[in-house]
Amino acid sequence: MLEQNTVIDQPIDAEAWLALTPEERWEKFESFTHPEAVDLFLDLPTAYQYELFVKLPEAERRSWLRLLAPDDAADLIQYFPAEEHPALIRLLDPTTRREVEALLDYAEDEAGGLMNTRFIRLRPDTTVDVAIRYIRAQARRPVETLQYAYVLDSEQKLVGIVSFRELLLAPPDQLISEIMETDIVSVLDDLDQEEVGRELNRYGLSAVPVVDSEGRMVGIVTVDDIVSVVEEEATEDIQKLGGMEALDEPYLQISMWEMLKKRGVWLAVLFLGEMLTASAMGYYEHEIQRAVVLALFIPLIISSGGNSGSQATSLIIRAMALGEVRLKDWWRVFLRELRAGLALGLLLGVIGFARILLWPTRNATYGEHYLLIAFTVAGSLLGVVLWGSLAGSMLPFLLRRAGVDPATSSAPFVATLVDVTGLIIYFTVASVILRGTLL
Amino acid sequence: MLEQNTVIDQPIDAEAWLALTPEERWEKFESFTHPEAVDLFLDLPTAYQYELFVKLPEAERRSWLRLLAPDDAADLIQYFPAEEHPALIRLLDPTTRREVEALLDYAEDEAGGLMNTRFIRLRPDTTVDVAIRYIRAQARRPVETLQYAYVLDSEQKLVGIVSFRELLLAPPDQLISEIMETDIVSVLDDLDQEEVGRELNRYGLSAVPVVDSEGRMVGIVTVDDIVSVVEEEATEDIQKLGGMEALDEPYLQISMWEMLKKRGVWLAVLFLGEMLTASAMGYYEHEIQRAVVLALFIPLIISSGGNSGSQATSLIIRAMALGEVRLKDWWRVFLRELRAGLALGLLLGVIGFARILLWPTRNATYGEHYLLIAFTVAGSLLGVVLWGSLAGSMLPFLLRRAGVDPATSSAPFVATLVDVTGLIIYFTVASVILRGTLL
Repeated sequence: MLEQNTVIDQPIDAEAWLALTPEERWEKFESFTHPEAVDLFLDLPTAYQYELFVKLPEAERRSWLRLLAPDDAADLIQYFPAEEHPALIRLLDPTTRREVEALLDYAEDEAGGLMNTRFIRLRPDTTVDVAIRYIRAQARRPVETLQYAYVLDSEQKLVGIVSFRELLLAPPDQLISEIMETDIVSVLDDLDQEEVGRELNRYGLSAVPVVDSEGRMVGIVTVDDIVSVVEEEATEDIQKLGGMEALDEPYLQISMWEMLKKRGVWLAVLFLGEMLTASAMGYYEHEIQRAVVLALFIPLIISSGGNSGSQATSLIIRAMALGEVRLKDWWRVFLRELRAGLALGLLLGVIGFARILLWPTRNATYGEHYLLIAFTVAGSLLGVVLWGSLAGSMLPFLLRRAGVDPATSSAPFVATLVDVTGLIIYFTVASVILRGTLL
Repeated sequence: MLEQNTVIDQPIDAEAWLALTPEERWEKFESFTHPEAVDLFLDLPTAYQYELFVKLPEAERRSWLRLLAPDDAADLIQYFPAEEHPALIRLLDPTTRREVEALLDYAEDEAGGLMNTRFIRLRPDTTVDVAIRYIRAQARRPVETLQYAYVLDSEQKLVGIVSFRELLLAPPDQLISEIMETDIVSVLDDLDQEEVGRELNRYGLSAVPVVDSEGRMVGIVTVDDIVSVVEEEATEDIQKLGGMEALDEPYLQISMWEMLKKRGVWLAVLFLGEMLTASAMGYYEHEIQRAVVLALFIPLIISSGGNSGSQATSLIIRAMALGEVRLKDWWRVFLRELRAGLALGLLLGVIGFARILLWPTRNATYGEHYLLIAFTVAGSLLGVVLWGSLAGSMLPFLLRRAGVDPATSSAPFVATLVDVTGLIIYFTVASVILRGTLL
């Protein structure tokens, strides 16, 4: 828990805020003194800033929008439909306006859409002494970080980085060009935000400079921007693995209609796919008629295939998202899943076999051929679990190879695929083992 | 992509490294010059540092371990079994040794286990001028961040925070106590790391001080430590939602046996749960015998229930992890899912109804009572989707209420629950609608 005696000076914290209903939030917001309202507004995630902002009288919007740093203002404006952007941008002061316009040119999920345009710039031919005084002056207006200063040449090209710590340790009359680090990690402005996060992580950086295609530095992305990116991306993956479109809004905030669209579309797609199971079953209707006992194990067998498939899919998709597994690793993964699928299939097969053989009423429930039934169930379990593990692990590779986000459709595809093929495996094994007795 | 002309000075980057096999990695590591090897070693995630470290000759271990900052050294030592810790700690210099010992006293997922013990300390009665000179001196040894300095009284209690920016802007002869911020957010050393991340996020901080139960400051947690926490926690949740235990190691690195245990246990638990479906089916064997056509739709119906349940579960579990939904929101969630479940159930019901009625060979496939079959299927779909949405959304609340991590068992429980009850719903609806005709 938080220390009780050291709470930040705020009338209500952002978390308590999110727990209220939209109506309660607006009522409370209106009841605040201006400084209280400002404190809260600056602390809120963009979705909640937007919720309040749209309810503000036109005349007040200017002063609220101007409270925000350029990147936060751009985020808020992005919540509005494109045709309203120009009017909103005109509310800003001319300097911020140019910065926001530049930011809005980038897609929201690119380095350029994530970056902050306010960073500390130095010239290579400045002395350390002058640089420190200059930074003191720059620090008067809000900058994202004082950890690093960026050394730009006359064409705004990034030629070096100097950390504040190095500046403090260097002799005052040394030139920046003599102490700056020239082996720089930078990212292009159209790099995907997930990749930006990975770069920061890989090199343990707290900020990375963003350059345009001509090498001019346009901003920085700091590690705290990345925390929300990482959370967002994980949320999207979890929701996609849950078999729906990513909501992109908090669960309690999204409108019912939006949520129904995002869940309904995939639920219907899955349903249409699963209809193949009815067709497959129709194909085996005759077998079921002759041996109804076979029907008893259908849910058990297809769900075991589904479970092993969903284990493999979630493992591989997460490993891909973290960069632990890459396209070219597909063969190593295939071999791992071959072994894992065999072992897990054997495990379930043995349990299933024992379950039938040790059942007290086995003769009454499964008939005189209970031993053959047990072999059929065990063999099918081995087959579907192996197939589930292989299909579940390989499909993300195929999707990524085809340029599709593997998270989007893997879970649904695997479920449908494994259910339909699970039935085929089951009835094929049955027809081999039970031919001449039950079938 | 990364700018090509500005690559960090490194023989191989950490990502390329992870793509190699363990054998290739060790071979390559041995072939490096010492500075190359050091560069790489410092860049690697702990799991990969450990992999190399255990292969090092005893005599070399000391110098490699001493390369690491206290928190990184503690992380590496934590990879070894507890009985080897003392010998490893003895390899460190006395100062670091004390810091590492203190860190090892904390659980890995607490603020204390995550924090860095090297931060900049100031006294309240120092002048700004002296403080800047003092920080210059402290900066000579590596500290985690220069963004903030922490003001401690004589008992090491945290009394204020001053940002570097404020120091630079303040008149040189002012006292630290006059410019420091005293409304401080701090976290207790035993706070769970997920909560620490939420605190940092909530207040938009780049570092948060960690204090012990007596208010003494013991370290700081910085936002870059949180990125990996957020990623780890999301990985755990995704793997748990995928129906297994969290692996805690990269997919390609974990031993086959470890992975099999973590997947096999849950697969077997799920399997035992799913056996109830065989029992439920046994109960309806008579109905299936009389109307084999009913068996055709079993996979379709239980998978639709499963899909809607898994949508609801992943939504709620993620929303809980992000703090968007809390225990007391259960009734609001219930009402939302009631409406969503009804709407989605109707959608699938209508599709299913149309599928049967519009099927070209409906009479041959479903018999003369195809209209009744269509009503049975549609009614059951409405029932199972509604039930799946409600069960999937409420179970995380029940589990959290009972003190269990909702991610651990929700997906499996929901799957089993919905499969078994889906069968019961289906056959109940069938017995009502088809009584007197097919049944």
